[in-house]
Amino acid sequence: MAVYTEVSDEELEDFVAGYDIGEVVSCKGIAEGVENSNYLLQTDCASYILTLYEKRAKPADLPFFLGLMEYLANRGLPCPTPVHARDGRALRELCGRPAAIVTLLKGMWPRRISVGHCAALGEAMADMHVKGGGFAMARPNDLSVAGWRPLFEACRERADEVKSGLADIVDRELALLERQWPTDLPSGLIHADLFPDNVFFLTDKETRRERLSGIIDFYFACNDQLAYDIAICLNAWCFEPDGSFNATKARMMLNAYRKVRPMTAAELDALPLLARGSAMRFLLTRLYDWLNTPAGAFVKRKDPLEYLGKLRFHRGVTGPGAYGIA
Amino acid sequence: MAVYTEVSDEELEDFVAGYDIGEVVSCKGIAEGVENSNYLLQTDCASYILTLYEKRAKPADLPFFLGLMEYLANRGLPCPTPVHARDGRALRELCGRPAAIVTLLKGMWPRRISVGHCAALGEAMADMHVKGGGFAMARPNDLSVAGWRPLFEACRERADEVKSGLADIVDRELALLERQWPTDLPSGLIHADLFPDNVFFLTDKETRRERLSGIIDFYFACNDQLAYDIAICLNAWCFEPDGSFNATKARMMLNAYRKVRPMTAAELDALPLLARGSAMRFLLTRLYDWLNTPAGAFVKRKDPLEYLGKLRFHRGVTGPGAYGIA
Repeated sequence: MAVYTEVSDEELEDFVAGYDIGEVVSCKGIAEGVENSNYLLQTDCASYILTLYEKRAKPADLPFFLGLMEYLANRGLPCPTPVHARDGRALRELCGRPAAIVTLLKGMWPRRISVGHCAALGEAMADMHVKGGGFAMARPNDLSVAGWRPLFEACRERADEVKSGLADIVDRELALLERQWPTDLPSGLIHADLFPDNVFFLTDKETRRERLSGIIDFYFACNDQLAYDIAICLNAWCFEPDGSFNATKARMMLNAYRKVRPMTAAELDALPLLARGSAMRFLLTRLYDWLNTPAGAFVKRKDPLEYLGKLRFHRGVTGPGAYGIA
Repeated sequence: MAVYTEVSDEELEDFVAGYDIGEVVSCKGIAEGVENSNYLLQTDCASYILTLYEKRAKPADLPFFLGLMEYLANRGLPCPTPVHARDGRALRELCGRPAAIVTLLKGMWPRRISVGHCAALGEAMADMHVKGGGFAMARPNDLSVAGWRPLFEACRERADEVKSGLADIVDRELALLERQWPTDLPSGLIHADLFPDNVFFLTDKETRRERLSGIIDFYFACNDQLAYDIAICLNAWCFEPDGSFNATKARMMLNAYRKVRPMTAAELDALPLLARGSAMRFLLTRLYDWLNTPAGAFVKRKDPLEYLGKLRFHRGVTGPGAYGIA
């Protein structure tokens, strides 16, 4: 859930008057995005998303995120485009917070994932990796392997409240990941949070087929090994609700990806380990949130153990063949 | 906060296909309304509000609410108009819940109330009272005087946790209200929840002046004495954030109201008592919610004592002159 900041109508009108986007006719807080306050802003010209960046967003990172969205959108990736105000700035201030207006993308995120969604995702992700290669700014991934142990230490003592023996399992897995984590795979710009709720699809009126219409929420984007982004998607898109792994979805995603950006043999070989690492990253952030969110809070806590199951699957994998590719 | 039901894209597309409103291009849960799940639905034709009625809405009441909105909208009141599906129905079902699509109103609710807002509210409320007079369906007000004691009994034991002595104060005030509550004032259709967040204003592009552009959320509407609706608004619109009563706002509201629908002498004389009753109603529902909402919950609890202060103000009032009218 979101919307932490209450924007007054006067403040909003003053803010929007700084842009060349018409007059406000409606502005409603939307229940998407957990970190920031998001509003669906309608003017007499078009619809936009207004975001107020709350505490957890580092102000120093915002020019990177907004610059990246603009860079990718200008190169044809369907992602939100920051709107520049009359003073030229895309990042401004509202209610004492950094704030930006971006274009509203059509489409809805898929609640039930099909193999077609996975193929479209693979293609768009590869396209993003290729296009992002030219983006000049850089931001390290603070939630990669070096960031996991501090996160674990912050929950180690209470980890077994969630599941008996969990601290030991994580400790041993972390040690392995720290030893074996690759560092020399092709690197570049990754999204790092490409979950289904960040990818929109729209049914084409003529063909009645769904097409990928948008990628949103670049607020974890960073520089890292490209195959790590793929590993995140294997976890986020290719497991069924019952925890089983759907190798057809993985194959569709990977094959569509490789048509746009071929993967090296080293990348393919590293996939099982990268998938274990990606499972560890979401296991740890969910564990941390689980232990630090009051039980009665309205925010829906995500189950960390879902990612323990995924981690176990990838531990049992001997090579990329398990993901449906030759 | 709202959005309790997660609607899948397939379910939504099927649902919207039953209407003649174009194809879905976007649908976002909005953080307005506490009782139901509300979505801002955009099609290639227009924008709408999709509401799924959750547990607290009695299904038997929904035809009354939707029928009333349609009745008032057809007579020129700026309120949401239910959209009928191809099968003629405005009330349908989605995700196992009653559901309806209504038109989206332009405007935003005022965060800082001006005397101009109060005047516009008075005029629109009177217009609604006049127009609502012809609506054929009826619904009793289950949150009027007869409903307060059961609500109090449900919190009596713990009332003093909120403020020492509160149970006694409420008990004595309730006894007085039950004895003196009028029953023979002009009656009709009232909104019964006309708080600022249910009234939209929009700045006119030409004149730069704000005009009232919408009244929403008819889910407490019922039949009752019309002046009780006015008393609710005296409490909701005419107190300043510091708890002081702004008699100018009250006068502007009442005078604008009376230009459209003259009030009888009995109504004017009853205003202080009705205002005490209205303060009691919100004191009790807030007290109940306060005692029954977990402290850590994300839902913002509203302070019941705000209404104790308002109640005290009206207890000190000797006649309608205190509300700025002769």
